[in-house]
Amino acid sequence: MEQITGGVTAAKGFAAASTAAGIKYKDRTDMAMIYSEVPCNVAGTFTKNIVKAAPVKWDQKVVYETKKAQAVVINAGIANACTGEEGMSYCKATAEEVEKQMQIPAEQVLVASTGVIGMQLPIDRICAGVNVMIPQLQGDLESGHKAALAIMTTDTHEKEVAVQLEIGGKTVTVGGMCKGSGMIHPNMCTMLSFVTTDAAISQPLLLEALQADVEDTYNMISVDGDTSTNDTCVVLANGMAGNPEITEKNADYDAFRQALHLVNETLAKMMAGDGEGATALFEVKVIGAESKEQAKRLSKSVITSSLTKAAIFGHDANWGRILCAMGYSGAQFDPEKVDLFFESAAGKMQIIRDGVALDYSEELATKILSEPAVTAIADIKMGTAEATAWGCDLTFDYVKINADYRS
Amino acid sequence: MEQITGGVTAAKGFAAASTAAGIKYKDRTDMAMIYSEVPCNVAGTFTKNIVKAAPVKWDQKVVYETKKAQAVVINAGIANACTGEEGMSYCKATAEEVEKQMQIPAEQVLVASTGVIGMQLPIDRICAGVNVMIPQLQGDLESGHKAALAIMTTDTHEKEVAVQLEIGGKTVTVGGMCKGSGMIHPNMCTMLSFVTTDAAISQPLLLEALQADVEDTYNMISVDGDTSTNDTCVVLANGMAGNPEITEKNADYDAFRQALHLVNETLAKMMAGDGEGATALFEVKVIGAESKEQAKRLSKSVITSSLTKAAIFGHDANWGRILCAMGYSGAQFDPEKVDLFFESAAGKMQIIRDGVALDYSEELATKILSEPAVTAIADIKMGTAEATAWGCDLTFDYVKINADYRS
Repeated sequence: MEQITGGVTAAKGFAAASTAAGIKYKDRTDMAMIYSEVPCNVAGTFTKNIVKAAPVKWDQKVVYETKKAQAVVINAGIANACTGEEGMSYCKATAEEVEKQMQIPAEQVLVASTGVIGMQLPIDRICAGVNVMIPQLQGDLESGHKAALAIMTTDTHEKEVAVQLEIGGKTVTVGGMCKGSGMIHPNMCTMLSFVTTDAAISQPLLLEALQADVEDTYNMISVDGDTSTNDTCVVLANGMAGNPEITEKNADYDAFRQALHLVNETLAKMMAGDGEGATALFEVKVIGAESKEQAKRLSKSVITSSLTKAAIFGHDANWGRILCAMGYSGAQFDPEKVDLFFESAAGKMQIIRDGVALDYSEELATKILSEPAVTAIADIKMGTAEATAWGCDLTFDYVKINADYRS
Repeated sequence: MEQITGGVTAAKGFAAASTAAGIKYKDRTDMAMIYSEVPCNVAGTFTKNIVKAAPVKWDQKVVYETKKAQAVVINAGIANACTGEEGMSYCKATAEEVEKQMQIPAEQVLVASTGVIGMQLPIDRICAGVNVMIPQLQGDLESGHKAALAIMTTDTHEKEVAVQLEIGGKTVTVGGMCKGSGMIHPNMCTMLSFVTTDAAISQPLLLEALQADVEDTYNMISVDGDTSTNDTCVVLANGMAGNPEITEKNADYDAFRQALHLVNETLAKMMAGDGEGATALFEVKVIGAESKEQAKRLSKSVITSSLTKAAIFGHDANWGRILCAMGYSGAQFDPEKVDLFFESAAGKMQIIRDGVALDYSEELATKILSEPAVTAIADIKMGTAEATAWGCDLTFDYVKINADYRS
């Protein structure tokens, strides 16, 4: 398996387009479309927030009832959440516009929105945007790249990744794009993530693979502890790689799972590192755990601790806050057995042994914590399970962005 | 029942003192002592964090085994948490210093610390501080006030309150002081809170009253979602009011409970409003709930949402974030039935009805949200239960304070 350049248009048969539809932003693109030459098996995971945006409800019907999709329409700027019946009708209108222009059944069209909650979509502009994009749909990497740019909100850069591998003697590609930034604490799946593949895989297995993988990828990141109303991750598989269709959990399935995992993990880490206002990706590994569940709970508790995140911003080796956050996670462990290490491109050092501080160099610790990607490793010495979670630092800019997001 | 001036020295027979012991700060007091002329029945509630500071472990023994206390020694600057055996030995040494000088058994001396985690206490300075304070113990209100100042860390003002009421024909006083500010998300009890009363009440009933009351007061506030290693709330009852001892749940018990509740709620709200960097107290009431548990879960979820807190800082009526935070709380409700109101000294207005925004004036909403105390009221129309939680806004100063707390 190797990483290649590209995103949602890397796999065979997929095209993308984007446009400046004037939904809320000026002077930038804010709509994107993904299209497959042939209908795809589709899998999706969605927010567990009780308050679900209209497009989440629409896409759930596509994933669980239609089980096929051929096009995705995405807008940034307005989330179409808390918009009642009117909001639902706009999902339908968007899908029907695609049906009218492309003869794809509306129930095979996914829609996704991100932005301000509680505002209605300007449906005329959405439909006009769809009409502009359809003739521009192209399969080149540049079109996929522009789509990744168009779906950003407070993201500072586009996020895409693609990998290639052999399955059944055929070259299979898995590519994806996502946007994250704020209100990122996925519970089931993250804000908006779109993965395309030309692999041939049955819909039930595709869904199972995705559901299992989000638990270790998107569900292990947090920017601010707020689980969004719009979290959506969809995978479209159009089968155009020509591999024998994966219909059981054999070696081909495992290979596909690995590729899907690499794409999802890469996108998830990109989102964490580009959290609103963030200056650093903060990775927390808990090792020596009794169970994966325990390791996950501990590592997630640390990456969501405001105090720990502020200390990372200050390049301060404030390990007490890390131990404290582990302590209130709800997972059982013996604080007096914990070893803690910090690691980054600048080196690795042990900070505490058996719950008590070593006589370490604060200067070296600060140097390690000043890198753009920083890892804390906690060994709880109870077993062999482990888990990793990803977050970011808490900065002035996070507050600034969110104190006047709507204005 | 009426509120009176004073704090921990308001009740009969209590004295306090404070000193600048040079624990960590310069040019300010950082140690305080509370003393009762006679041994008190003592109740306490403590952090549920697995990582418990040494003084928490010490005080748990006093509350659950000795059940009596006559003195409390408090220091600010160093938390004596994650300090192993050495840290425990310093709790003992402090209590033994009091025993030596005052002939109070060490196991009737409570100790409490707040500040940086992982640093050892300068025990010589602590003992020297005890020796300075003992001869200065005074029962006047000013001494209590100075004690409230000495226990602050990043608090911007001292926090004390006292109330008086009649029980069994006698005037009973309940007074308290606390410190809060950061790492405030009590789970059982908050950072440090000390309540004194001259009421005569049996130890088991005192403990029961406290345990029930913290659930509706300290456990309903949050500054940053971080549950401290040091959370401690103790109540000392010396019986010097001369009321017939409260030994059963009669009208006298109810009257005492009300007084204790007023003291605890006032101190809890003071902590929330003076959260690190805060410019506003943010109160969230959930009404029309099926159960109190449901209302608590919903209101706490809103006050801990970073996005909502940043919006309050920006005086932005970003109600979508409130609904979103209710949605991921884990409590069940119908988002399409929610009514939401904002209220403050500047007025009250309805923002959403049945989950959808009304055509409200953003200008008036901003005016309401610009007050130093702001309330959001969510009616979920399922029943008659309700709950209130208190937090604060998320500001640049919170990040600033916590990015370089240790330096």
